Amino acid sequence: MTRSTFGYLTPENAPLFTDLYELRMMQAYYNQGHNPTATFSLFTRSLPPNRGYMLTAGLEQVLHYVETLSFGDRAIEYLTELEFDEAFLEYLESVEFTGEIRALPEGTPVFANEPMLEVTAPIAEAQLLETAVINQIGFQTLIATKAARMRDVIDREGDGQRLVDFGSRRAHGTDAGIKAARAAFVGGFDGTSNVAAGEAFGVPVSGTMAHSWVQSFEHERDSFETFVDEYGDDSVLLIDTYDTVAGAETAAEVADARDVTLRGVRLDSGDLAALSKAVDGVVPEVDEFISSGIDEYAIAEFFDRDGVAAGFGPGTALVTSTDAPKVEGVYKLVAVARDGELEPTMKLSAGKVTYPYPKSVCRSEADGQYVGDVVGRRAERSDLPGEELLETVVEDGERVVDLPDLETIQDRASRLRRKLPAKHRAIDDPAPYEVRISDRLEAETDDLRRTLEARMLE
Amino acid sequence: MTRSTFGYLTPENAPLFTDLYELRMMQAYYNQGHNPTATFSLFTRSLPPNRGYMLTAGLEQVLHYVETLSFGDRAIEYLTELEFDEAFLEYLESVEFTGEIRALPEGTPVFANEPMLEVTAPIAEAQLLETAVINQIGFQTLIATKAARMRDVIDREGDGQRLVDFGSRRAHGTDAGIKAARAAFVGGFDGTSNVAAGEAFGVPVSGTMAHSWVQSFEHERDSFETFVDEYGDDSVLLIDTYDTVAGAETAAEVADARDVTLRGVRLDSGDLAALSKAVDGVVPEVDEFISSGIDEYAIAEFFDRDGVAAGFGPGTALVTSTDAPKVEGVYKLVAVARDGELEPTMKLSAGKVTYPYPKSVCRSEADGQYVGDVVGRRAERSDLPGEELLETVVEDGERVVDLPDLETIQDRASRLRRKLPAKHRAIDDPAPYEVRISDRLEAETDDLRRTLEARMLE
Repeated sequence: MTRSTFGYLTPENAPLFTDLYELRMMQAYYNQGHNPTATFSLFTRSLPPNRGYMLTAGLEQVLHYVETLSFGDRAIEYLTELEFDEAFLEYLESVEFTGEIRALPEGTPVFANEPMLEVTAPIAEAQLLETAVINQIGFQTLIATKAARMRDVIDREGDGQRLVDFGSRRAHGTDAGIKAARAAFVGGFDGTSNVAAGEAFGVPVSGTMAHSWVQSFEHERDSFETFVDEYGDDSVLLIDTYDTVAGAETAAEVADARDVTLRGVRLDSGDLAALSKAVDGVVPEVDEFISSGIDEYAIAEFFDRDGVAAGFGPGTALVTSTDAPKVEGVYKLVAVARDGELEPTMKLSAGKVTYPYPKSVCRSEADGQYVGDVVGRRAERSDLPGEELLETVVEDGERVVDLPDLETIQDRASRLRRKLPAKHRAIDDPAPYEVRISDRLEAETDDLRRTLEARMLE
Repeated sequence: MTRSTFGYLTPENAPLFTDLYELRMMQAYYNQGHNPTATFSLFTRSLPPNRGYMLTAGLEQVLHYVETLSFGDRAIEYLTELEFDEAFLEYLESVEFTGEIRALPEGTPVFANEPMLEVTAPIAEAQLLETAVINQIGFQTLIATKAARMRDVIDREGDGQRLVDFGSRRAHGTDAGIKAARAAFVGGFDGTSNVAAGEAFGVPVSGTMAHSWVQSFEHERDSFETFVDEYGDDSVLLIDTYDTVAGAETAAEVADARDVTLRGVRLDSGDLAALSKAVDGVVPEVDEFISSGIDEYAIAEFFDRDGVAAGFGPGTALVTSTDAPKVEGVYKLVAVARDGELEPTMKLSAGKVTYPYPKSVCRSEADGQYVGDVVGRRAERSDLPGEELLETVVEDGERVVDLPDLETIQDRASRLRRKLPAKHRAIDDPAPYEVRISDRLEAETDDLRRTLEARMLE
């Protein structure tokens, strides 16, 4: 077995990252000869608490998943153990995605009830994607949004401070650590401490030193000297192991004695705003990097208190999105073919009503600022105001767009985010952005509800 | 490239799941000839909010990581791009873990300031483990604890209801989805919907149907009939797509007409306690499975309102531990060899003081119930009351214990959890459990602090 410690998924078993019910439904669709074309829509019913918008991310992983979707021997072997039918497993061995996917490009501001992605395919195929699609887009969107909020605060109150993800150790597993680094970059971060994210996605990596380095020497000064001997001008010294201000003085003396220009010092405990000012008084020429408990709220408070920083290293709060640790993405059937025609469908479950039909999401601008969206039927696209946001990314099972590189996604995200008026980007109690449901979609939803209610009485 | 969609880590690059600073410190330890033996301790400074205890999990993954630790060509190639030294990379290519690891077995109740794991090794090796160890044990401990809280509520107020993890889609990436299923099983769950977790760890998998199955037919009745035609007695029907009570009646009629005994029905929306009672009135012989917004608080309320259930399917709240989404594990240097002798070390950073020295954690019982722990120096083990909890699991780089299977870990966790008095297992405002620091450790910590403060004035 060549399975890695952390990477349980290999090309041989990746499609097993799914809920069993997807495969059970798939088998029943297949065996019962009920495999109509269907459209599923991925969206959230509400924004996470205290969020004025979300920033999409994770599409590249979904497209890669769809393009490489294949049940290898190992997957089939396990499904055989689970007593799936031989005929169905033969079908699975050759299954490929053959349908269409429309999606918001990564780095798009998005709101509740707006489709982030729509899949139209034979229902067995479309159903199979559910778990992986929600998982990948939901998590990266969660983190890109959290990152963007920190960048929003710096745009508003700061001076272009660097943001580097320090969260890998507290991420929910390894995939989260790596993807959080990618998503944070989409949201406006400059880099990550996670080496695997550098290797996998080219996210710029950086790193300083830990307290253990300092403590492993009898004197803090020895630890600084030895580090500078190794890294010269590329040294960031951690100065809070014993006493932050004294540590800054020692750092400056060591740099002077060794004739190097420090890349900076790092503060990781205590009253960070107050200490940063004290350190700036001692070594005004040295960049200060601030870590420990950093999130958008802490950055805003740091600026309010006139803290001095060249950069911040958010960790746990970034990678777990601690104040709102979930994007409740749902992937709902909105249309299904009957007698060859796609017909709308919805459930009536309390509190979980979904608008039926394949959709368009159109966004209007005035003076370079977004002023409101409308969600309507895809069929009424030409009658809706604004620019369509959903792009066709897969047709007949083939990707039909080039994947932008990560810098391009980040640039686009930054540009689009700034088109969103500041009131929607407030980190506390943001103003709601207008997302209107088209009159036609509202009316046809009401019609369908009446039809379904009448059908229940039959 | 054979990289999987989701499994970025392979045996070739797994050690890259680390923070860059670990490798930068490692290079400096190596190049500067400063590689003393050191002890690091993994613990948390406080319990997550509203938690009376945590339940450890994730050690198996850490041991596998340590046993297979190896920098393959791909890892070395990337580190070459990052401009690490050739000599250091040659050392890395042959590096193995050669030290000692002591740890709490998986499924042990643990409290703040108690080491969950201690590593003693040349500091370059011990340093390298930091990111991966905190990540894996932190996340699985987080989820095992959340799961155990749900099992605690059922133990207290329920009737042995089944608990099945439905959270994969909302987990933070794929590793989290798979490991959450494992950790939830450790904490007392019966199974998971995640097929990959079944394949990787043997967690029992189960699954029902989604609303999309029901909606893909013109009539709910057709959807139930077709599903029962496929799965017979092994059918759990989702009854809330249109009207829950009417859905229950239809399910019963279909079962009767097809002459099958349903495995159950699932309720996924609305006032779950009230609906479950209404459904029980209609089909008292059918098991009800409850999903949507389930966590320990929801289960307690469900029982308080006399809801009827054979099982629950917690999802998002389980896999993200929504009310407390982080275990703030730290991995701190507590001793380092100077002139060949391990000497204590600590930092003095505000709010982040760590007790020095390798430690023992001893737990006392009275009448089969835990009554308190003491954390002391490892060197004073024989003077401490109670049973030592840290076991030596790796010696001279070799694993010296057999890995228990997952059922054994679950059984042990269940047994130990129930030794913890109920007041510490309350889901709201639990009573604090006594963890005493030994007099000797307190005194020697004070001595060391004074020594370090004096050294700063030199």
